[in-house]
Amino acid sequence: MPPKRRTPSEGISDLTIARLSIYLRYLQVLEAEEVQTVSSQDLADRFHLNSAQIRKDLACFGEFGIRGVGYNVRELKDHLIEILALDHERRVVVVGAGNLGTALSHFSGFNTGGFRIVAVLDSDPQKIGRRTPGGLTIEPAVKLGEIVRQRKVHIGVITVPSTAAQEVFDEMVSAGVQAVLNFAPTQLKEYPNVKVRNVDLKVNLEFLSFFLRHPH
Amino acid sequence: MPPKRRTPSEGISDLTIARLSIYLRYLQVLEAEEVQTVSSQDLADRFHLNSAQIRKDLACFGEFGIRGVGYNVRELKDHLIEILALDHERRVVVVGAGNLGTALSHFSGFNTGGFRIVAVLDSDPQKIGRRTPGGLTIEPAVKLGEIVRQRKVHIGVITVPSTAAQEVFDEMVSAGVQAVLNFAPTQLKEYPNVKVRNVDLKVNLEFLSFFLRHPH
Repeated sequence: MPPKRRTPSEGISDLTIARLSIYLRYLQVLEAEEVQTVSSQDLADRFHLNSAQIRKDLACFGEFGIRGVGYNVRELKDHLIEILALDHERRVVVVGAGNLGTALSHFSGFNTGGFRIVAVLDSDPQKIGRRTPGGLTIEPAVKLGEIVRQRKVHIGVITVPSTAAQEVFDEMVSAGVQAVLNFAPTQLKEYPNVKVRNVDLKVNLEFLSFFLRHPH
Repeated sequence: MPPKRRTPSEGISDLTIARLSIYLRYLQVLEAEEVQTVSSQDLADRFHLNSAQIRKDLACFGEFGIRGVGYNVRELKDHLIEILALDHERRVVVVGAGNLGTALSHFSGFNTGGFRIVAVLDSDPQKIGRRTPGGLTIEPAVKLGEIVRQRKVHIGVITVPSTAAQEVFDEMVSAGVQAVLNFAPTQLKEYPNVKVRNVDLKVNLEFLSFFLRHPH
């Protein structure tokens, strides 16, 4: 969870964007079941969502549903794929081949739906040259810039310790990466036109700890 | 990112709670450096945070700083530990010993600062009995309820495929778990008094994809 509110793109909040991704997933489930139309209420009931929120989020991007009928499943799915830009291949590099980086490098969600991991890097000579379970060979971290440029990497994933994260991030940005998923428990210095998404596992645990003491 | 806004506890938003955890981390850095007082501006400048946000977040929990002087580092750190309830040991069970579950089970952030992983479970007979790199033996998933009760588990971590996630969640809740970190890409049915935090890796990638098309 980022400690700063990011500037929304074209007035659309980060939370709305993240929810579009959830809606898309469920529309794909419905499409696989050959469901043709769905109301926001049906979608909400079946997948434990909020129907008013669905209508509000989708309204940010234009008029989709028909009052009293609902949304055409395939059309809405196609719209969301377009909005989220999932009709392009997105090449991903993972820097940090520790447990988490290795697990992510063959995590199915990272190699489907247009995303493809093209390299896993580490600075540890013991790790360089090893094969990951996903079938990639771990490459030296010093080659980051070269790999980003040659393999046209769009997204960088940082799974190095927090002490090394800023340096890796700086190198990614100077090689042209504009989107970074950061698992290191540190706040990266921001750059204009570079979007960072922090996934901070410790923050999530501490968050739950708060609610164990202050139940709602 | 949860698709629903959760009811805030005592009017405090989920985003504020997550930021407290970030502030705590940096106060610990400052304490290790023997810094005695820090202003919100210093904290913001050094760790790439937002100073107005820091003041606003902390004000939710009472009066901490002294105008013109700042915060006493140790006092504020101790307050945050108390607010986040990190002065108690929190026992964690991980269900799903795939790549992600195994990586998490010996992720340092999960075994420090009061959190302790006490069991890793799986339903696959091939995995049961194996040792994880963190030194635990993988136990059968059917023992979940018994383990939760006997080892007084506070937090459940779900790293099973999405098709199995609701069932695992239901079992956790019926055994008395009140806080769950869910990595399965599915929206779990809510229960009263049970807090769920979703960490959805695919959503994060799709979120970045949006910003690659719509730079800000």
